[in-house]
Amino acid sequence: MFNVPSLNKQIGNEVSAYVDQLTKPAGSLGRLEQLVIELAEMTEAHFPTVTPPGVLVFAADHGVTKEGISAFPQEVTAQMVLNFVRGGAAINVFSKQIGASFAVIDVGVATDIPGEDFVNEKVKYGTNNFCEQEAMTNEEAKQALFVGHRQAKKMIENGIRCLIVGEMGIGNTTTASALLAAISRKPVDVLVGKGTGISDEMVEHKRKVIERALALHQPDPSAPLELLSKIGGLEIAAMAGAMLAAAEERIPILLDGFICTTAALVANLFHPHVGDYMIAGHRSQEPGHRVALELLGKEPLVDLGMRLGEGSGAAVAFPLLQFATNMLKMATFTSAQVSQGGE
Amino acid sequence: MFNVPSLNKQIGNEVSAYVDQLTKPAGSLGRLEQLVIELAEMTEAHFPTVTPPGVLVFAADHGVTKEGISAFPQEVTAQMVLNFVRGGAAINVFSKQIGASFAVIDVGVATDIPGEDFVNEKVKYGTNNFCEQEAMTNEEAKQALFVGHRQAKKMIENGIRCLIVGEMGIGNTTTASALLAAISRKPVDVLVGKGTGISDEMVEHKRKVIERALALHQPDPSAPLELLSKIGGLEIAAMAGAMLAAAEERIPILLDGFICTTAALVANLFHPHVGDYMIAGHRSQEPGHRVALELLGKEPLVDLGMRLGEGSGAAVAFPLLQFATNMLKMATFTSAQVSQGGE
Repeated sequence: MFNVPSLNKQIGNEVSAYVDQLTKPAGSLGRLEQLVIELAEMTEAHFPTVTPPGVLVFAADHGVTKEGISAFPQEVTAQMVLNFVRGGAAINVFSKQIGASFAVIDVGVATDIPGEDFVNEKVKYGTNNFCEQEAMTNEEAKQALFVGHRQAKKMIENGIRCLIVGEMGIGNTTTASALLAAISRKPVDVLVGKGTGISDEMVEHKRKVIERALALHQPDPSAPLELLSKIGGLEIAAMAGAMLAAAEERIPILLDGFICTTAALVANLFHPHVGDYMIAGHRSQEPGHRVALELLGKEPLVDLGMRLGEGSGAAVAFPLLQFATNMLKMATFTSAQVSQGGE
Repeated sequence: MFNVPSLNKQIGNEVSAYVDQLTKPAGSLGRLEQLVIELAEMTEAHFPTVTPPGVLVFAADHGVTKEGISAFPQEVTAQMVLNFVRGGAAINVFSKQIGASFAVIDVGVATDIPGEDFVNEKVKYGTNNFCEQEAMTNEEAKQALFVGHRQAKKMIENGIRCLIVGEMGIGNTTTASALLAAISRKPVDVLVGKGTGISDEMVEHKRKVIERALALHQPDPSAPLELLSKIGGLEIAAMAGAMLAAAEERIPILLDGFICTTAALVANLFHPHVGDYMIAGHRSQEPGHRVALELLGKEPLVDLGMRLGEGSGAAVAFPLLQFATNMLKMATFTSAQVSQGGE
């Protein structure tokens, strides 16, 4: 279904050798040195670039909110889509700071959104409550996956060089925790957290809700489309699809927090190489994020105690990718006539 | 000698209340929320700004290099000044990325630097070898301190809103380790590290060199000028002076790594409030940096395994200050008509 190329290790080795010629002690730029090598391997460029970045925010609702698992009412998803459209959300001001192309996509909000400054690709008016029935049909999951795939392809055709995938969906930490439990086979209680900010009692309730859903559906991660249809979210499916599109085009994917990293794990179920194109942006405070990052084998760039989603943590990490690529504009020991260290 | 105002906690409280009205779950932007409150307290602005930043790189040589404590020969200090002038160093490309004003100041390089695109404020042709005699006179230490003070004042008058202080000086991790040992009263072996990259044997040699200097001078941190004259560096004195000037003008100081944080501790010895205007940019790999940050009571924003100096770690952290201040451009729950969370 998807065709993801392998990393170009040869170019990575060449860039690595070049980095050691720059006017700085070997290795002294730490993680930034590793980053530019990874970006070279992904993009097959000796001087990789990540600008301009693109930010896709997928919005959808979750039937499981009926179980009372969020601090915010479901209508906030639609209200926040309007906030994104008007430029008032964190991801808006952060996207502006990093010079990103920005789009918000309604892939499954429970109500109709007025106005036109968003992409209407609504597959369904929110998922079903997966405690009672499958969240969506296989066909709907596939549709949502390809909404994301199509939107990412479009942004890439328009010239973005790095993809950030964000989300908005009241209840989606519950959905992501269910997916992560199925994929990781870890007990739910090590995965669930406070989401947008709920009490310890509600966290406990959230755990039971997820366990009920898992008991009902017995989801199998070896069948990713079924996994999404049983306990997934429309925006999570779209996010996975967007990542698959980016990897197909050798575009680096900068991951956000818990929901995004869970979508990344789902994308990986569709194609095992897609993770090669991912860089973990930040570490979220949501406890499941740590588990998701470990499964993906990624260490985040920053750890600032954030837990907002929308793509905000990835946006905050983005300038580090720019520092890494700009490093290659430094002089070499030879060009600058600087003596090299001994030992 | 210096006049540093207190933080404005009242404005900090007002900004804190405003941050809670923005369209995001309370506290969900983590450290960025704390940052903008701190910036408001420093700058006395309800909407603080940190752009444009200014980068001052102070260069000087260290007589202690005669003891063979660095992987690079002393001539590299002068060579790197020319590299800074031509724009080829890491701090050049990073300063450009963050839109910083940039200046390199010769406060004590051992040779004359050709050309004009740097500030010539040479106090002395490098310090004396502090294993044998005092690094400089009290008067020279004071001169170097005021070179930094004057250069920072000048940049602030020209409009910078955040100060980054970097350095270049072969041998200066040895000098900084000696200063930190005197200030912290910790054993030298927990402070010294590989600097630009030396072997374990050389680290051991470096430790002994520092212990000899401390035994010879018995430096007393309650007399900061004497401390600098006995075992200091000209660029470290200038860095401390620049920080004092910034704090006097309520300009936030974004700290770099080990040398810079040691200079920050020295500045704090001159005035106990200057630390209130400091934000720790990154955690360096140099082991003494951890001790210096603890003494200063600061937690760094990023930890990327860097150990280059020049101000590069601070520059890399700078966009986080911008994200923090840009946060205040978000809509509020009221202005965006978004429902607030309950419980």
